Formats: sequence, C-alpha cells, structure tokens
Amino acid sequence: MTKHRLEMFSDGVFAIVITILILNIHLPETDTGHLGQALRDLAPNVLSYAMSFILIGLYWIAHHTSFHLIHKVDGAFLWMNMILLLFVSFMPFPAYLLGRYPLMPVPLIIYGINLIAANFMGFSMTWYSCYHPELLTEPFSIKDFRKQFPIYFLINGMYLVAIFLAQVFPVVSYVIYIVLALFLVFFYARIGVK
Amino acid sequence: MTKHRLEMFSDGVFAIVITILILNIHLPETDTGHLGQALRDLAPNVLSYAMSFILIGLYWIAHHTSFHLIHKVDGAFLWMNMILLLFVSFMPFPAYLLGRYPLMPVPLIIYGINLIAANFMGFSMTWYSCYHPELLTEPFSIKDFRKQFPIYFLINGMYLVAIFLAQVFPVVSYVIYIVLALFLVFFYARIGVK
Amino acid sequence: MTKHRLEMFSDGVFAIVITILILNIHLPETDTGHLGQALRDLAPNVLSYAMSFILIGLYWIAHHTSFHLIHKVDGAFLWMNMILLLFVSFMPFPAYLLGRYPLMPVPLIIYGINLIAANFMGFSMTWYSCYHPELLTEPFSIKDFRKQFPIYFLINGMYLVAIFLAQVFPVVSYVIYIVLALFLVFFYARIGVK
Amino acid sequence: MTKHRLEMFSDGVFAIVITILILNIHLPETDTGHLGQALRDLAPNVLSYAMSFILIGLYWIAHHTSFHLIHKVDGAFLWMNMILLLFVSFMPFPAYLLGRYPLMPVPLIIYGINLIAANFMGFSMTWYSCYHPELLTEPFSIKDFRKQFPIYFLINGMYLVAIFLAQVFPVVSYVIYIVLALFLVFFYARIGVK
Repeated sequence: MTKHRLEMFSDGVFAIVITILILNIHLPETDTGHLGQALRDLAPNVLSYAMSFILIGLYWIAHHTSFHLIHKVDGAFLWMNMILLLFVSFMPFPAYLLGRYPLMPVPLIIYGINLIAANFMGFSMTWYSCYHPELLTEPFSIKDFRKQFPIYFLINGMYLVAIFLAQVFPVVSYVIYIVLALFLVFFYARIGVK
Repeated sequence: MTKHRLEMFSDGVFAIVITILILNIHLPETDTGHLGQALRDLAPNVLSYAMSFILIGLYWIAHHTSFHLIHKVDGAFLWMNMILLLFVSFMPFPAYLLGRYPLMPVPLIIYGINLIAANFMGFSMTWYSCYHPELLTEPFSIKDFRKQFPIYFLINGMYLVAIFLAQVFPVVSYVIYIVLALFLVFFYARIGVK
Repeated sequence: MTKHRLEMFSDGVFAIVITILILNIHLPETDTGHLGQALRDLAPNVLSYAMSFILIGLYWIAHHTSFHLIHKVDGAFLWMNMILLLFVSFMPFPAYLLGRYPLMPVPLIIYGINLIAANFMGFSMTWYSCYHPELLTEPFSIKDFRKQFPIYFLINGMYLVAIFLAQVFPVVSYVIYIVLALFLVFFYARIGVK
Repeated sequence: MTKHRLEMFSDGVFAIVITILILNIHLPETDTGHLGQALRDLAPNVLSYAMSFILIGLYWIAHHTSFHLIHKVDGAFLWMNMILLLFVSFMPFPAYLLGRYPLMPVPLIIYGINLIAANFMGFSMTWYSCYHPELLTEPFSIKDFRKQFPIYFLINGMYLVAIFLAQVFPVVSYVIYIVLALFLVFFYARIGVK
C-alpha cells in the first residue's frame, strides 16, 4: 500500500461524507399552506449541516497536512487511518441528531464524543509515526510533536467542556462547537496549507 | 495543498452531488392501479432533476475553467473553495423543494438564493486571485476580470428578477431559471472549454 | 477540458451511481414474525438491482472503450457526455420502479426508454466524433462507425420490442432486458477491453 | 482496459460503499422525552455499522494486495471483478438487516452468504489469473495459490458455521463474524500491506 493510494482512498471518503451530509436535510410532507413554517423549522438542520461540512473539511485538510510527513504506510498505520475514517464517516449521524434536536443534551454529547474520537485517532497516527521514522519523509521526533500538544489539548479540552455543559447550558455547548470550528478555519488558513 | 489536490477533491464533490440528485425522486407507496398517476405527479421532480443536473455540470465546468489560471492555493483561497462546495453540495435540497412544490414561491426563492450564493463565491475566488498574482499561472488583472463582469451581472441579475417574480408570477420565475441554464450551456460550449 | 479530466469525472459518476443502487433495496418496517416473508417480497428488487448494476457496468466499459479513440473534447462533445451521464445517473429510479412493481407495464416501459435514451447519446457522441477528426487519436470514419450499426440497431430494436410487449407480455419484456444484459456482458468480454 | 483504470474504479466503489453505510443508521421520529431510549435502541445498528465498515475496508485492502500481481486485465477478469463489486456494494443491505434485527437468524444467514459470495469471487479471480500468466506481473502458479487455501477455507468455513448456528445460537453466530473481522485486521496488519 503506497501512501498515495491510501491518501486517494481517504480523500474519496472525505469527499463522499461531506457531500452526503445534505441527505440529512429532509422536509417532512407538508401541505402548501404550512411550507414556510416547515422550512423555518429546518433552520437548525441547516446550521448543523454548515458546521459539520466545515468540520469535515477541516479533517480533510488536517489529514492532508499530516500526510505530508508520511513517506510510506505499514499495517498498523493503515488501520489507524481506517478507524479515523470510520469516525469521520459516522459524522452524518450526530450531525442529523444535532439538526433534529438542536438543544437537547444527548445530540450535543454524541457530537462531541465523535469529534474527540476522530481527533484521538489523528493524534495516535502522528504519535505512531514519531516512533516509526521509516514511515517519514523527514525526521519528525516526539519533541517536534510535543509542540503541537497545546493545540490538541485546547481543542479536545474545549470539546470536553462542551460535553459537560450540554446537560445544563446546551446553548453554550453548541456555541463552543461553532466557535471552535471557526477558530480552526482561521488557524489552518493562517499557518498555511502545505 | 497543491492546486491539483484541491481540484481532485472538488471534482469528487461535484461528481457525487450531481449523482445523488436522483435520490430526490422518490415514488410514494402507491397501489398498482394508481401507479401511472403517481408517476405523472413526479414530472416536476424530473424537470427539477434535469435542470439541477445541468446547473451542477455548469458549476463543474466553470470551476475547471477558472482553475486553469490557478497555479497554487493559499489558506484563504482554499476556504473560499470549501464554501463554494458547501453551496453546491446544498443544491439537492432546493432541487427537491422545487420538484415537490414546483410553483410555490418559497422553493423558487431558495433555489435562486442558493445559485447566487454559489456564484458569489466563484466571483470572490476570481477577485481574490487577481490581487494575489503569486497564485496564478499567468497574469490576470482586475482589468481582465472586469471584462467578465457583464456576464456575472446578467446572470445574477436575472436570478434576482426570478426571486422577486416568484411571489407573483412563479411560472415566469421558473422559466427564467430554465432559460438561463440552457443559455449557459450554449455560452460555455461556444467559448470553448479549456 | 482535457479528455482525461472528463473521463475521470465520468468514471466518478459511474462508480457512484452503480454503488447507490443498493439504496433502492429497503425493507419496510416488519415485526420479527414476518421478516422472512418481507425479505422474500424483496426478491424482485434484488433482481432489478443485479441487472441494473450490470447495465451500468456495461455503460462504464462502453464509455471507456469509445473514449479510447478520443484525443480531446470540445464544448458540444462535453455536453453530449453530460446528457449521457444524466441518463445513466437517472437509472436508479427506473431500477427502483422495476424492483417495486416488477411485472407492471409502466416500469418496464420507463426502464427501456431510459436505456434507449442513454444509448442514443452514446451513439450521437461517436457520430459527432466521426465528423470532427480533430477530436480523435486515430482516423475513425463514418464508414468504420457504420460497421457498428447492426449491434446498435439490434440492441435498441430489442429494447423497443420490450417496451411494446410490456403492456401485453410483461414477463417477456423483462426477460428481454435480462437476456440482452447477459448477451452484452459476453459480447464485451469477447471483443476484449481496450 | 488498463489495470490502473479498473483499480481506480474499484477503489471508488469501495470508498462509496464504506461511506454510505452510515445511511443505514436512522433515528425514528421520537419525542424528546424518549430520545435517550431511541438512541440506545440504535446500539445494534452502530455495532453492525462498525463491523461492516471494517469488513469493507478488509475487502479493499485484499483487493489492492491481490491486484499487486496483476499486470493487465481481460474481459473475463474484468467481469469477475464487476461481480465482486456487486457483492461488496450489496453489503449495506445485510448490514442494515443485522443492525435492525441483530439476533434474528435470517439477517445473520444473509450476512454470511454475502461474505462467502464476495470471497468466492476474489478466490475465482486469483484462480483465473494463475491460469492466465499473461495477466500477471510476476509468475504466480496454482502451487503458490494453494498455500493460501488454508486461510480461505478457514474463513469461509467459519462463515458457514456461523450461518448454520444462526438458527439455534444467533449470539455465537454474530460473535464469529466479529472475531473473524478482528482476526483479519490483525492478519493483514501483520503480513504487511504491499
């Protein structure tokens, strides 16, 4: 398995999952007199769609950026990547829940757990590659990796906060997800894309 | 992020969204005696399918044509492209609405807003690239871009007219969308594809 | 637009449409005691799935084979290809109808019309390329094309027969579709794939 | 048809089918008071999703590994590959059944038959290529292939056991599928990916 092949496959999965998000937005059968109201009721679904679209886009860019260091893949790395894709491919379901029941605690909790799980796999892949320099294009030590720890801990720590706040302040929890997504867009746009 | 990589990803999204449009056409459970009638009732869905298929095809060709000038991408350009893809990926929903409630004002309005939003992102990307010559393969100044303004204003102006007419003359509004789509097919076929 | 680019996009559409066919097979909510019966009722859906899968596979191979002669594409050729993709992408709907109402005339008729429409576009593309030698890798005259007419006429003639028989002998009509699909598999396997 | 082209198409199908598995997980309309319960009821669907995701990933890796030996494809090989893709593309349906009715015999039986059918096609393709050395990059005799027989027989034999046990011990049957999937992940990770 070349790195190129795995990257093409992963890109395909990212492109598909980001595009089928729209299948979550489904108008219930409505008589024409209540169409306007039925569409207004879909506003939370559209919000969840937009946020999830951006988050999957971020995973795609982060995946691409971290694969820049990778020269070849082994069996363990391949399967960590598959589990990462499993969590990313799962996102349409929490995105649906969050759209359908926007301020209920459970969807906010599931959404956050899904994001942390995906982030954890990305973290593990980079960690693993530090200890397997034969997979890398250029040396990348655990020391270099440690420099990225603060941003990892910040993001996932905030997701944990969002999860714990979901029960009491669901609005705050939702705002955390949105603000973090926007922050990451600007963060990635600023550090540049390789 | 190379231009090639972003183009591949975008092409994937265009191919997926154009293909899943068909999932909008759904026959309600019908007893066999009323099958013919139920299928005739789907005619507006098929019309919306065909028009949306052609419009997404046009976005794909326009995207390809404008990427011809691009040499590399930066963070801002990448994210403008993601937002463009967000609006293009959204199209199955307005397409569904227009198929299900063909002459109601609201679907016609949402359809037009979606198209204008996507066009606006395409416009912004070209504008941005004019001021970032390091992204271009060959010089393309704001002056060269201005030559394309009339066609931009014509198309989006007509969409605005369609949106405003939706409330009073929905048929006219729908006809504008169809005529513009056909016009653009011939326009792009005539200027040639690069 | 290079030939390669259009071919990649078309391949993407073929791959997506062939894969989402499975979304047509949907088990209605059933209590566990009637699960076996409910699954047996899906047999016609599985038959339609398998036949449509093979037919889309055939279109993909035919598309690939005929693109072998193509060197570059122009605007008209590009749009004929888009309309071909429109008809191929439409196939999940007739496939659903044929699976849900297997021996009703209307689904059999729509299925046949869809196939003839797609074949007609393929025919038009080859015809067009005969008269535009600048698009070809090697000379391919209308005379060479005429040698393929018998197989075109045979296939589409049989589809016409199937359409006309649908009203009176739906079983015969269905059998024609199946036999033709199997015939084409062996025909293409025998002439070899380029 | 070059090997590369067929591999790209197959990879596309694998990527699509693995990603649309998530469409199987669908929350029934629930009032907010019963949301937690409705989500707990989806646990079997999530289990089936994860197992099927991993199995399709395994098919992708196995496909890639066996294509390593292939230099070019002929008509018969191409169609054996299409039938393999047909069975892989079918997997979302048994995966749905197993998620919806996790310990009913019929879903467990259909799931196993689908896997055996896909494995049989993979087996046939390798068998066929042994007798058509012109398709291979390096000699691969039936003798070399025989060394792989034990693992083939073990896996498909276990699936047969799972099918026969489904009627009496559905839990054991389900456990066999899960254990085999995990075993294969480690098996493929250990032999390395080419």
